[in-house]
Amino acid sequence: IVTKLPNVGTTIFTVMSALASEKGAVNLGQGFPDFNCDPSLVQAVTNAMQDGLNQYPPMAGVQVLREAIADKVEKLYGHHYDPLTEITVTAGATQGILTSVLCAVHAGDEVIVIEPVYDCYVPAIELAGGIPVFVQMTVDQRGYSIPWDKVKAAVTPKTHMIMVNTPHNPTGTVMKAADVAALADIVRGTDILILSDEVYEHMVYDGAPHESLARHPELAQRTFINSSFGKTYHVTGWKVGFVAAPAAMTAEFRKVHQFNVFTVNTPVQYGLAAYMKDPAPYLDLPAFYQKKRDLFRDGLKNTRFELLPSEGTYFQCVKYGAISDLSEAEFCKWLTTEIGVAAIPVSAFYNTPKESGIVRFCYAKKDETLRLALDRLAKL
Amino acid sequence: IVTKLPNVGTTIFTVMSALASEKGAVNLGQGFPDFNCDPSLVQAVTNAMQDGLNQYPPMAGVQVLREAIADKVEKLYGHHYDPLTEITVTAGATQGILTSVLCAVHAGDEVIVIEPVYDCYVPAIELAGGIPVFVQMTVDQRGYSIPWDKVKAAVTPKTHMIMVNTPHNPTGTVMKAADVAALADIVRGTDILILSDEVYEHMVYDGAPHESLARHPELAQRTFINSSFGKTYHVTGWKVGFVAAPAAMTAEFRKVHQFNVFTVNTPVQYGLAAYMKDPAPYLDLPAFYQKKRDLFRDGLKNTRFELLPSEGTYFQCVKYGAISDLSEAEFCKWLTTEIGVAAIPVSAFYNTPKESGIVRFCYAKKDETLRLALDRLAKL
Ligand SMILES: CSCCC(=O)C(=O)O
Ligand SMILES: CSCCC(=O)C(=O)O
Repeated sequence: IVTKLPNVGTTIFTVMSALASEKGAVNLGQGFPDFNCDPSLVQAVTNAMQDGLNQYPPMAGVQVLREAIADKVEKLYGHHYDPLTEITVTAGATQGILTSVLCAVHAGDEVIVIEPVYDCYVPAIELAGGIPVFVQMTVDQRGYSIPWDKVKAAVTPKTHMIMVNTPHNPTGTVMKAADVAALADIVRGTDILILSDEVYEHMVYDGAPHESLARHPELAQRTFINSSFGKTYHVTGWKVGFVAAPAAMTAEFRKVHQFNVFTVNTPVQYGLAAYMKDPAPYLDLPAFYQKKRDLFRDGLKNTRFELLPSEGTYFQCVKYGAISDLSEAEFCKWLTTEIGVAAIPVSAFYNTPKESGIVRFCYAKKDETLRLALDRLAKL
Repeated sequence: IVTKLPNVGTTIFTVMSALASEKGAVNLGQGFPDFNCDPSLVQAVTNAMQDGLNQYPPMAGVQVLREAIADKVEKLYGHHYDPLTEITVTAGATQGILTSVLCAVHAGDEVIVIEPVYDCYVPAIELAGGIPVFVQMTVDQRGYSIPWDKVKAAVTPKTHMIMVNTPHNPTGTVMKAADVAALADIVRGTDILILSDEVYEHMVYDGAPHESLARHPELAQRTFINSSFGKTYHVTGWKVGFVAAPAAMTAEFRKVHQFNVFTVNTPVQYGLAAYMKDPAPYLDLPAFYQKKRDLFRDGLKNTRFELLPSEGTYFQCVKYGAISDLSEAEFCKWLTTEIGVAAIPVSAFYNTPKESGIVRFCYAKKDETLRLALDRLAKL
């Protein structure tokens, strides 16, 4: 077989998780909680299985779940998506992202991606035969930000899509109204589509709003919004998400979806629909994670790490220049092996090699796990 | 958006299921059981969720499930696949098929498909930029068979893959040793890959063997074998399957898989692994479905339908020429609306339009459902 993805190896998340477990390190690398989900969510899925809801669901997802999603999006962001024609349940956000790109990007189309970039974006573009065009975020003491002038300069007549992500993995940056306005300025009057990865939509801190593109009709009408239940409900292994997009875009999305996964686990969909009736779990999520963020940041203040902001997600980026001059990847290996705490090099999120002396920790962990990690990091 | 799949509409399965429920017809159209799975399988998944096995599994699937699959394949078909490097758990066989094609087929490659063909094969080829090359099965009173001379004649220097399916949906045909030998003759000395869709592997009747390509080392070394737990364990809505392929092919498969779904529902994987320890459910399956097949065929003998063989799968094809001269699609609509039994037109499995006067019934139903359908069909 001649490879379709020559640049793909084992993901950094897998590599670091394996090293962490080999070395007995506290794993603050790969982004997932080390605590269990709400038992009543487990019960809701069990009920569905016991009720015999184990056969094919409708291709786009079970009706009650699509309605629950549409209601939530409308309540939070003020935009009504029709559950019948504009919401599709996916086998996780990764599948939603590949399918969005596969259905919309043709061979030779350019797609603008902003680095650091989550690892599935570029392979999706390559599988569609598209051409990724990179713009790097700028980073200084106040953290990462998107240089919209550079995004604008990257637009050509072949630009078919811009991919954005807010709250942003790995940087923890959250798009502001000014970012949204800049993006709107760039696409206005063009046919450029947007893919907005909003899987951390319920993890925005300090009272700031999540600037879902669903809030902005001018953008929503050309956007595939991808989200995930895994992050919101502490079940990253369940692999269920959704894509919201205008009917014409959803129609194309579903043509590919139907022949990719066809549909998504039925009892999990019914369980989620029942569980979503109570908004408390996602409304309480910012407070839940903000406390963990603050605990973790407070602890790091006793180290020589320089903290970057973490406005959203469950990630904290730090500069380690005062501690080491190793490359990011080497520093993460050293930290895992010698100090017993695993982190992810931000350089792994660049296609164009770039070293910023910054690594990412995940704080979606029990307080005791965070404290153990902090004890170890205090040695630095 | 300019469509990537101009020929794709709503699948015939969805259309007929919707019409069946609108008309209150007995739904023998879409292939899924109308009875629930084993409660101990539900319990096994519940146990995994309660044990907190709800976060990301390894990308290729949880180790215990891959080992259980490898053991089963080796016991039944005598070929050892390494669970670490040769077995990948998929979000159902549809995802396995798209991923097999996407990772292996390059723009302009020809892929031979045998009609009637399951509906996801051709869109997968199109999404990869490949060119489907059609060979039609021949059909007479003894049923459907593959004209291997025509398959051989369809091979060109651009042929990159041949897709086969045994037991075959929709015809219920099972490949024989002679079919396998003919396929081996065609590919010997070439680089042609094979995709073998074996999702009905445990539904072969009358004591015949399932000619898995895993039994045939000469073929197995170039084959992606796709299978599914949904059919075997009466959980078509769970969307879990697997792909077995030699390590080099699996490596390419996983590069795409990783950026398609990344991975598959964790608790369902652990539940299946626990449940698979007992081979009885799949060893008993041929007897279970053969009884239903015989009940259904015996009943149909009182009608003017002409029965074709059903050697495997849970499908029964019949000729209706003595009853009606409507097209297959029109006949299915009439049968659903006027007689109250839904069926699927075999013409829907052809890309090159073809009317054979044959429709497909699904007999994966409670005996009482089959009897009710037979009562209605007896009017014919
Ligand atoms: C899909 S494994 C990676 C999990 C994740 O989203 C991250 O760590 O960034
Ligand atoms: C994926 S819905 C169709 C189910 C099926 O395999 C069939 O009816 O042929």
